[in-house]
Amino acid sequence: MNAMTPLEELRHSTAHILAAAVLRLYPNTRLDIGPPTSNGFYYDFDSEHRFSTEDFATIEREMQNIISENQPFIRKEVTREEAHTLFRDLDQPFKLSRLDDILESDSISIYTNGEFNDLCAGSHIESTGKVAAFKLTSVSGSYHRGDHTQPMLQRIYGTAFPSQQELDDHMERMEQAALRDHRKIGQELKLFSLDSKVGSGLPLLLPKGAVIRQQLEKLINDKLFEYGYETLYSPHIGNIDLFKTSGHYPYYAESMYEPITIDEREFLLKPMNCPMHIQAYNAEPRSYRDLPQRYAEFGTVYRMEQSGELSGLTRVRGFTQDDGHVFCTRAQLKQEFTSCLQLVQEVMAVFGLKTECRISLRDPNNTSKYVGADELWQPAERCIREVVDELDLTHSVGLGEAAFYGPKLDFMALDSLGRSWQLGTIQVDFSLPERFKLEYVGNDNKPHRPVMIHRAVFGSIERFMGLLIEHYAGDFPTWLAPEQLRIIPISDAQIPDADALLTRCKALRIRASIDTQKDKMGAKIRRARLDKVPLMAIIGKREAAASQVAVRSRKEGDEGTVDIDAFLKRIDQEAQSNR
Amino acid sequence: MNAMTPLEELRHSTAHILAAAVLRLYPNTRLDIGPPTSNGFYYDFDSEHRFSTEDFATIEREMQNIISENQPFIRKEVTREEAHTLFRDLDQPFKLSRLDDILESDSISIYTNGEFNDLCAGSHIESTGKVAAFKLTSVSGSYHRGDHTQPMLQRIYGTAFPSQQELDDHMERMEQAALRDHRKIGQELKLFSLDSKVGSGLPLLLPKGAVIRQQLEKLINDKLFEYGYETLYSPHIGNIDLFKTSGHYPYYAESMYEPITIDEREFLLKPMNCPMHIQAYNAEPRSYRDLPQRYAEFGTVYRMEQSGELSGLTRVRGFTQDDGHVFCTRAQLKQEFTSCLQLVQEVMAVFGLKTECRISLRDPNNTSKYVGADELWQPAERCIREVVDELDLTHSVGLGEAAFYGPKLDFMALDSLGRSWQLGTIQVDFSLPERFKLEYVGNDNKPHRPVMIHRAVFGSIERFMGLLIEHYAGDFPTWLAPEQLRIIPISDAQIPDADALLTRCKALRIRASIDTQKDKMGAKIRRARLDKVPLMAIIGKREAAASQVAVRSRKEGDEGTVDIDAFLKRIDQEAQSNR
Repeated sequence: MNAMTPLEELRHSTAHILAAAVLRLYPNTRLDIGPPTSNGFYYDFDSEHRFSTEDFATIEREMQNIISENQPFIRKEVTREEAHTLFRDLDQPFKLSRLDDILESDSISIYTNGEFNDLCAGSHIESTGKVAAFKLTSVSGSYHRGDHTQPMLQRIYGTAFPSQQELDDHMERMEQAALRDHRKIGQELKLFSLDSKVGSGLPLLLPKGAVIRQQLEKLINDKLFEYGYETLYSPHIGNIDLFKTSGHYPYYAESMYEPITIDEREFLLKPMNCPMHIQAYNAEPRSYRDLPQRYAEFGTVYRMEQSGELSGLTRVRGFTQDDGHVFCTRAQLKQEFTSCLQLVQEVMAVFGLKTECRISLRDPNNTSKYVGADELWQPAERCIREVVDELDLTHSVGLGEAAFYGPKLDFMALDSLGRSWQLGTIQVDFSLPERFKLEYVGNDNKPHRPVMIHRAVFGSIERFMGLLIEHYAGDFPTWLAPEQLRIIPISDAQIPDADALLTRCKALRIRASIDTQKDKMGAKIRRARLDKVPLMAIIGKREAAASQVAVRSRKEGDEGTVDIDAFLKRIDQEAQSNR
Repeated sequence: MNAMTPLEELRHSTAHILAAAVLRLYPNTRLDIGPPTSNGFYYDFDSEHRFSTEDFATIEREMQNIISENQPFIRKEVTREEAHTLFRDLDQPFKLSRLDDILESDSISIYTNGEFNDLCAGSHIESTGKVAAFKLTSVSGSYHRGDHTQPMLQRIYGTAFPSQQELDDHMERMEQAALRDHRKIGQELKLFSLDSKVGSGLPLLLPKGAVIRQQLEKLINDKLFEYGYETLYSPHIGNIDLFKTSGHYPYYAESMYEPITIDEREFLLKPMNCPMHIQAYNAEPRSYRDLPQRYAEFGTVYRMEQSGELSGLTRVRGFTQDDGHVFCTRAQLKQEFTSCLQLVQEVMAVFGLKTECRISLRDPNNTSKYVGADELWQPAERCIREVVDELDLTHSVGLGEAAFYGPKLDFMALDSLGRSWQLGTIQVDFSLPERFKLEYVGNDNKPHRPVMIHRAVFGSIERFMGLLIEHYAGDFPTWLAPEQLRIIPISDAQIPDADALLTRCKALRIRASIDTQKDKMGAKIRRARLDKVPLMAIIGKREAAASQVAVRSRKEGDEGTVDIDAFLKRIDQEAQSNR
């Protein structure tokens, strides 16, 4: 197990305190595991008592008692037999099952605080009294070992911080995040539907969500034209042999759905687009003059996810990658890699999203996990490091996190709440060109092997839409807003004027609608605000007579009355501009 | 068997003459069947001799002998035993197998001309001498009963006409068509790849083909915005229950691929988009104020095709429909149907394609084949007839060709060679709204059932691309051409000028490239013509000095020298305009 950070130690220790408190209150409870998470910790229990948030005050009180007792956390290394005896006597079958997972070569440790004993590799804080601020947050079902054939357990989540202030800030952020939850906003704004009749994990983009996707695709397509990419359309199923050659099968076999048999051949719902793009490269002989070849596709891929893991647009069973592959010479690699990185940065800047990146390299002590000789890895790693240094990018390094075929640069976006979201990746790949025997004829008239870059900006368009919904809390900028303008006639007498304005908007491809309901103006304005429409054009008798509209914007509120021509020019500019 | 047209009789009789000639030349040949086709006829043979086009002169000579002998075609009704004895004695096992197909209730007939006997329902021309003009055209493999587990046979194709002139015209058209074969042009122009490694019947659109598809999608999207459609994105797999509710399963079960099991539920690669669009309608309660709801999607659907049936872009296993569904009140039906029809006509006019249409109605003598009461069918049929009459459309009527849920209007396009291609369809559907229990609240505040229109313009984008490739013989108009402009520097000295022009083209989103090869100008022009690029801009020393280009267009040839600004304006206009 990796060493824990101090915050992880604190939270993991609080998980032990939770388990100790639960055992005091519900002595027949059986314990599974209680690790720290990115936001706190959880512990999984098997209990006849059905835990609910109503129990939290009682449990927290008992946890506070344990903290007040300031029990030291004591580590003790034991033999397998000693551990077995202990947890058998404690009637903790899940612990016995976890004990069996520990390799013969590894040490077995027990952590004890007060009367509580846990099978645990550690590490922990000094004593329970060091927990300054904690809170239980939720409870949900979970399966032992995440396997739905195993018993259903109850998972209690909580969090802990070194100070009350930090806990309060965290809870405030969580509350903010809950308000921005893309599943909630997605339903309120009718962006997408999660419909078990269609299928779990298979979101259906409704008209307003489809507009956002179309705008994202247009943004990417415009960039791709600038960056010299060409588009491909590849089929959604492919011969399984393609994925055997690539190594995805059996490498990714657990993420794939079962094959479909057609004419005695097996086909897969494609888990990746790369083999298709490789076949496009292979569709004709290539010369060094043809390189780089840059291919892009909005390619929908399918990944196995357990139904318990599915969530909104972020964990789904089919999603669309803004996928791209560059085939180039080794001499072109650095320039192409730099271009990919600039593309990611330019696109994220459109949304005001800061990015973090992480260089994923080979484990230098265990190069046997990777394919390809050192002389192929070294220039690839050097390329990534040099580009990251030259562009002076803040980055972390993950040793041992490379893909099996090459090193990569992963991106995370920081949203308006400072939360980190996984984006796309840029990967340098010497392996698939080898496995598919890709070639180009060099200016020496001899065959050479190209290098391949795999890259995605958004990664998954669906997940990126989830990010954007939460980042903007549904208040999309005009260019991205499903409805850009709400036209509000004050009475039915102005409906013809509203219609005339709508016609002019349509000619400019502005997405507008008229509120023809029988409500008062105030109610119509309120409705437009709830629908998160960035601009309103209100037309009363006076405005109609003067060919004007009264403008309200989401940002500025009442902006006064302007001529229709000037207003159309302004909204057209807002709708066009996404920089 | 339906009655044959005179032309079919002529061709079917020529097939018998072919079989008789083959038996004279290769007496051990076994015969399967020899029907007429839309372009001629074929006959399937099992022979130790391997037929090739080199045999055609010999066979045609023997066929001419049989025609000169002016043998009458004589029909004789026989008992099953007589037929069995005859074909057993003739050692014709396939005929015996076909004999078993004939129902006990049907009569069995033998047609005889000269020494030749065939098991045949007819009908035939009077005598072999009536065949005025015929020709054998090709030979290919085929399976007995189209089943690849059955013996492989040899199929000889031919055609016949009432006059030599008509045959000559037909052969000329066939030659034209062969030159325009989209599979041939598709490969030459690198539009798409049919790659068995990816999978048979699963075309991979290469960059140049992808441009055409993007332009088609853009054309449709622009029209959809004008016509008030909203876009959906639905998943590519869906819960099988959705298709059971719709009736597609088991109704379309033979066209579907086997289900994929996920979490013990069955999912289908979607054979149709309609149930997904219905779920979008159902995603919220609807009022009469919300109607019509018009949804559109480029939805990829999957249909089972035997590998022997697959062909280029026209018979594939997965294709993308420009699909749309309108949900409206019965009062809105006629207006919505008219809009759909105008949409089809406007889009086809862009390509200079004439359309034919066919009204498919219920069989008035057999209404039991259809769901829905008379009072639902009558207004639907009346709607279609009235719209077709009001717009004065040339049309045919197919009694008994309606969908099981409602009447429809099918479209065929006539290409530049006068050939007919299947396009989309507009269908009026009272059945699926019933099956899915769709509702809207009327202005009477009571629930009502909407009507549904299914419509597609292209039908299949892939097939429509096949049509366009053949219609234009690869010479796409500028707005559709994968490469719109080839920039030709006369020597390397003009490459910077070519680069500058390319940069200005890119800013206008014009698809251009520079020919930097070391060839003479003539060779570069020839290459651009072979690549079917509609415009060339040639830059020599003189043009570069004067900020001009020498323009060549595919249509007009040399168009002389013009200022670069004027040229960019002209190509931008051509690229924008598709009407």
